[in-house]
Amino acid sequence: GAKKNSLIFGTRIGLLGGGQLARMLALKGQELGLEMHVLSAQASDPAAQVTRHWHQGSPDRAEDLAAFFKSVDVVTVESEFHEAALLAEAEKTSGTKLFPSAANLGSLQDRLPQKELLKNSGLRTAPFLAVDSWADMDRAFAAFEGEFVLKKRRGGYDGYGTFIVRSKKDLERLKITFDPTLSPCIAEAFVPFRRELAVIAARNPQGEITLLPMVETHQVDSRLDWLKGPVRHGGLRALQKGLGKFLEKLDYVGVIAFELFETQDRLLWINEVAPRVHNSGHYSLEA
Amino acid sequence: GAKKNSLIFGTRIGLLGGGQLARMLALKGQELGLEMHVLSAQASDPAAQVTRHWHQGSPDRAEDLAAFFKSVDVVTVESEFHEAALLAEAEKTSGTKLFPSAANLGSLQDRLPQKELLKNSGLRTAPFLAVDSWADMDRAFAAFEGEFVLKKRRGGYDGYGTFIVRSKKDLERLKITFDPTLSPCIAEAFVPFRRELAVIAARNPQGEITLLPMVETHQVDSRLDWLKGPVRHGGLRALQKGLGKFLEKLDYVGVIAFELFETQDRLLWINEVAPRVHNSGHYSLEA
Repeated sequence: GAKKNSLIFGTRIGLLGGGQLARMLALKGQELGLEMHVLSAQASDPAAQVTRHWHQGSPDRAEDLAAFFKSVDVVTVESEFHEAALLAEAEKTSGTKLFPSAANLGSLQDRLPQKELLKNSGLRTAPFLAVDSWADMDRAFAAFEGEFVLKKRRGGYDGYGTFIVRSKKDLERLKITFDPTLSPCIAEAFVPFRRELAVIAARNPQGEITLLPMVETHQVDSRLDWLKGPVRHGGLRALQKGLGKFLEKLDYVGVIAFELFETQDRLLWINEVAPRVHNSGHYSLEA
Repeated sequence: GAKKNSLIFGTRIGLLGGGQLARMLALKGQELGLEMHVLSAQASDPAAQVTRHWHQGSPDRAEDLAAFFKSVDVVTVESEFHEAALLAEAEKTSGTKLFPSAANLGSLQDRLPQKELLKNSGLRTAPFLAVDSWADMDRAFAAFEGEFVLKKRRGGYDGYGTFIVRSKKDLERLKITFDPTLSPCIAEAFVPFRRELAVIAARNPQGEITLLPMVETHQVDSRLDWLKGPVRHGGLRALQKGLGKFLEKLDYVGVIAFELFETQDRLLWINEVAPRVHNSGHYSLEA
């Protein structure tokens, strides 16, 4: 018999968003016999094309969310950047579960609580400081000895919303074009790394965790160029334990991607977290 | 640049029928970036569920075919049992190509011309006789020494429309329930076989032919239970040549499945031909 909360044939899955990630989810879900619903603005959106169950609307509008949540059995996202309060409201009024939860999306879509959660779970991550003011920028410059990465707390991906400072001149130039009082940021120390790695985890409502094999990723212009794996690594077991602790603490349910740095001394540091399917796991569609 | 007749991104592919085979075609086509259209009766049909481009109608109704052919770039089938004359008419009035052609579907959907075409291409196939009358049944019984398989010329698949005669008693019993003057048949000699094999071929408009690896298939109650492959076989090269000749003779374009018997003396005989995708090739979706 089907376990409680397991995805049985014909379950109606709601996807918020109609982009490429939602399209891949829709196609694979349909292969598994699931009924894939898509909420997006345009009939021509990539995911809207590949299902009969396209719902016109916006994942950022309360009334569209309410109607959509009511028409499916469970909802998930292709992007972490939806308004968490709206999602929580839709979940509450419809009684339909959202995975990952609105609370998890809310904390992970903001780099500051994301970093704090990583740190509090004992995972290695670059030293960071919150930057909300001009004074914070100078403080970061001093603390990280003239070299840091400034990242917007919300909405950044594939290198967007990221600025690199390596000199006083860089800092002065950045101050001309960028106002930290308008977009809160974090400053991170540079992590000199040997290579970039990634690992995808999934956790179900029963708390069972599965990890995809760790892969090495190579980016060109902040876009994934190639990846290879599985990567064997002495630190994998400890990492796995730390990630497990992190996911349990959050009571996270769903798929989540961790981008890693392997440092010169072969330690694994968490660079970024994406609470969703991720390009470092696309290989699993066929592999 | 894209070759003439090659399937470029966004090409509108029309599928006649909305069953499981059409569903698999729709999902894989969409993975390749093709726009998959489905003509079927019900929105709940398996293939109708997995595309935005479902057209309500019947592949056996002239006006539905005419409208459907006009709305896509190229059409194919999931079943060989559509009325060939209707398909030819839709192709002619719309100017949209059907692959495999209406002429090919017309000859291969009827076991008598199918067997004749195989024989004329030098492919090994079981001896057969046309059965249109009571006298033909007796003639087959005598010619095949009291043992034969009677198959309806049209509409049979997965063992439907097939009757086995192994004795005079079987023949008399069959004559009570079955009238050959109403459903024309062929009688085939039994082929004592070591195992059943299958091979899928595809031929493009330029005449290039690709074969999937040969597989061994095992049926239970006329349904595929398991298959394994690739099967190495000394007769494969000669078979490949024969199949090539057969496809060229027909100017066949599309995917086509050949079910084979390997006889006790390890020769390869053609059992049946299906001018479409086929369950013996499902493994290629993932393998």
